[in-house]
Amino acid sequence: MQESLDMHKKHKGKIEITSKVPLETKKDLSLYYTPGVAQPCKEIHKTPSSVYDYTSKGNLVAVISDGSAVLGLGNLGASAAIPVMEGKCVLFKKFADVDAFPICIESQDSDTIINTVKQIAPVFGGINLEDISAPRCFEIEKQLKEQLDIPIFHDDQHGTAIVVAASIINSLKIVKKNMKDLKITICGAGAAGIAVTKILINLGAGDIILCDSKGIISKDRTDLNPAKIEICKTINKSNLSGSLKDAIEGADVLIGVSAPSIVTEQMIKTMNKDAIVFAMSNPLPEIMPDLAKKAGARIIGTGRSDYPNQINNVLAFPAVFRGALDARATEINEDMKLAAARALANCIPETQLKEDYIIPSPQDPSILTAVSEAVKKAAQNTGAVRR
Amino acid sequence: MQESLDMHKKHKGKIEITSKVPLETKKDLSLYYTPGVAQPCKEIHKTPSSVYDYTSKGNLVAVISDGSAVLGLGNLGASAAIPVMEGKCVLFKKFADVDAFPICIESQDSDTIINTVKQIAPVFGGINLEDISAPRCFEIEKQLKEQLDIPIFHDDQHGTAIVVAASIINSLKIVKKNMKDLKITICGAGAAGIAVTKILINLGAGDIILCDSKGIISKDRTDLNPAKIEICKTINKSNLSGSLKDAIEGADVLIGVSAPSIVTEQMIKTMNKDAIVFAMSNPLPEIMPDLAKKAGARIIGTGRSDYPNQINNVLAFPAVFRGALDARATEINEDMKLAAARALANCIPETQLKEDYIIPSPQDPSILTAVSEAVKKAAQNTGAVRR
Repeated sequence: MQESLDMHKKHKGKIEITSKVPLETKKDLSLYYTPGVAQPCKEIHKTPSSVYDYTSKGNLVAVISDGSAVLGLGNLGASAAIPVMEGKCVLFKKFADVDAFPICIESQDSDTIINTVKQIAPVFGGINLEDISAPRCFEIEKQLKEQLDIPIFHDDQHGTAIVVAASIINSLKIVKKNMKDLKITICGAGAAGIAVTKILINLGAGDIILCDSKGIISKDRTDLNPAKIEICKTINKSNLSGSLKDAIEGADVLIGVSAPSIVTEQMIKTMNKDAIVFAMSNPLPEIMPDLAKKAGARIIGTGRSDYPNQINNVLAFPAVFRGALDARATEINEDMKLAAARALANCIPETQLKEDYIIPSPQDPSILTAVSEAVKKAAQNTGAVRR
Repeated sequence: MQESLDMHKKHKGKIEITSKVPLETKKDLSLYYTPGVAQPCKEIHKTPSSVYDYTSKGNLVAVISDGSAVLGLGNLGASAAIPVMEGKCVLFKKFADVDAFPICIESQDSDTIINTVKQIAPVFGGINLEDISAPRCFEIEKQLKEQLDIPIFHDDQHGTAIVVAASIINSLKIVKKNMKDLKITICGAGAAGIAVTKILINLGAGDIILCDSKGIISKDRTDLNPAKIEICKTINKSNLSGSLKDAIEGADVLIGVSAPSIVTEQMIKTMNKDAIVFAMSNPLPEIMPDLAKKAGARIIGTGRSDYPNQINNVLAFPAVFRGALDARATEINEDMKLAAARALANCIPETQLKEDYIIPSPQDPSILTAVSEAVKKAAQNTGAVRR
């Protein structure tokens, strides 16, 4: 992709900071800078909540990373993560008119990251965490949610979870199965795998078998990190042990958020009838769609734009934050995520659903309104809004 | 100024974050986001300096405050400082096409501020410190200069110093006095007063008497903070003691960066012939221009836009950063500040100089090129550029 390098170089990055106000006349300067600017300052000092009226805070999201898990590339550090974070920022603007700014943090120490984000929070109306490696990402998100009163959203977890949930909801309408009867296997127990597991439980999934690189996660394992130990309490009801192959046998749904090419045709052949396979390792999936199809899978999704059913976070994060900001939400809670998933699924009328069209394309203009409205309403219904 | 409140509310702040790249087609998304974005990430990981080629860093300045000294309003805290910082950001864009982003830090502890700025430095090509109270601002700037390899510039100090220095340079051409023969009195020993003192010494000023609210700063004083003790070594050569009134008597130049209305006509009358008075407390000066004139001052400047000779930082900071960023400077050093002051002064041809036109207006289009080129050249000449 020399072209991508060339284009990044030509534009010298992707974001620009522009003025929303005119600055042509002396009067403009006196209104928006000195002496007029003293008025909103004094007003915010007197009535802190008016910061949402007089500043850009209410539409401003920080896209924050430490560069520890950049795309599928691994730990590249803060500077090398900037192109991804700038990319997120321009997608926020393009798809939801959210102003987003990239912050790449030098340290990879969790406490340092938490403290840094807290210190810079005043100008932001929300925080989108990005490409922070598991299990650190769980603790960082948890602490920030507890300590800040603005929405905190780790997109690798919850963006993925929302889009996968919407894809499952629509797939079930095609294969005519119920969520509670499903046997679901999830391959990959990092940020995305854990979050997908949680949202599917909250959607009423039957049993879920979660696998990491060592195989099925069960109570008998002694090598689990705290996040895996915690999630283990609510999944794998028969306490199965074994390999990924064992986990896939008889499954209705296989969700891959792990590594390229680790699922074989033979494994897919052992799945239940009308198998649903989301192989989202990117750019190289757990199994290529044509092989999964040949092996009998009925519905197949990937993270790629060159195959049908692209299960991509961009379907969720811009509209989710649009709704949260519009509601002046104090958090993005489980109800808001579920509402987003259901609204995203409903963007395709049931009559139009088919095996290779279970999820809308990012360009679908109905997503923004549907998802943001649903998120806003859920925030209001759960009382998660600023008074 | 209800109008200022109304306009801030109408626009909900002043900054917007937009895309420099097109995002219309699937191809655009694949170049600027996944999978193409992986290429610049890998390239930066391999060659760290290429972050200037592939990201917005090279044109991005953080405008950072803790809200401890907002305008003349005092310690209003982080949130109430946002309107001023957003204002700086839009001025950066308007006057020098620099992309600037406001960061307001929750804590007012110097070490916490220093650490926070270091942690978020990777995305920024420069740091503009703003409205941080003295003497904390000196230590914060010093530490950041030592620990980061991008330009650090406390505008309340150095922006003010550059514009005052340019104004003095041009005033001396009118009154036909030499810098080295001047007796200069500076009223106010905060961030601006100390920095103005330093730049005038570097320009070869004769003797400078610096006053704070307790009177003349001399070696006999026992109540001085470290910054005042340090500056005391290079000023007040006869070790005078006394009041502001004593300090003004016989002075050629009076520079006020202190508080409203503390200078009287009587004091101005005791100044030397062809007195130069810059009364920059804002919006209410140390003495109103008409009173100073009546008392015999020949050249008068203020911080206000409704009087001649508005000595305003906006004449310096945008072009100074433009030059520093264009040079990929690693700092903004004394030579660069002096070069900026001289270039700014030279924006008015000597034949056009007069008592009420010693400094150009911010709208003068020659400032940007003249000052940024001078700063860039000084950075190169002093070796303060990235290799």
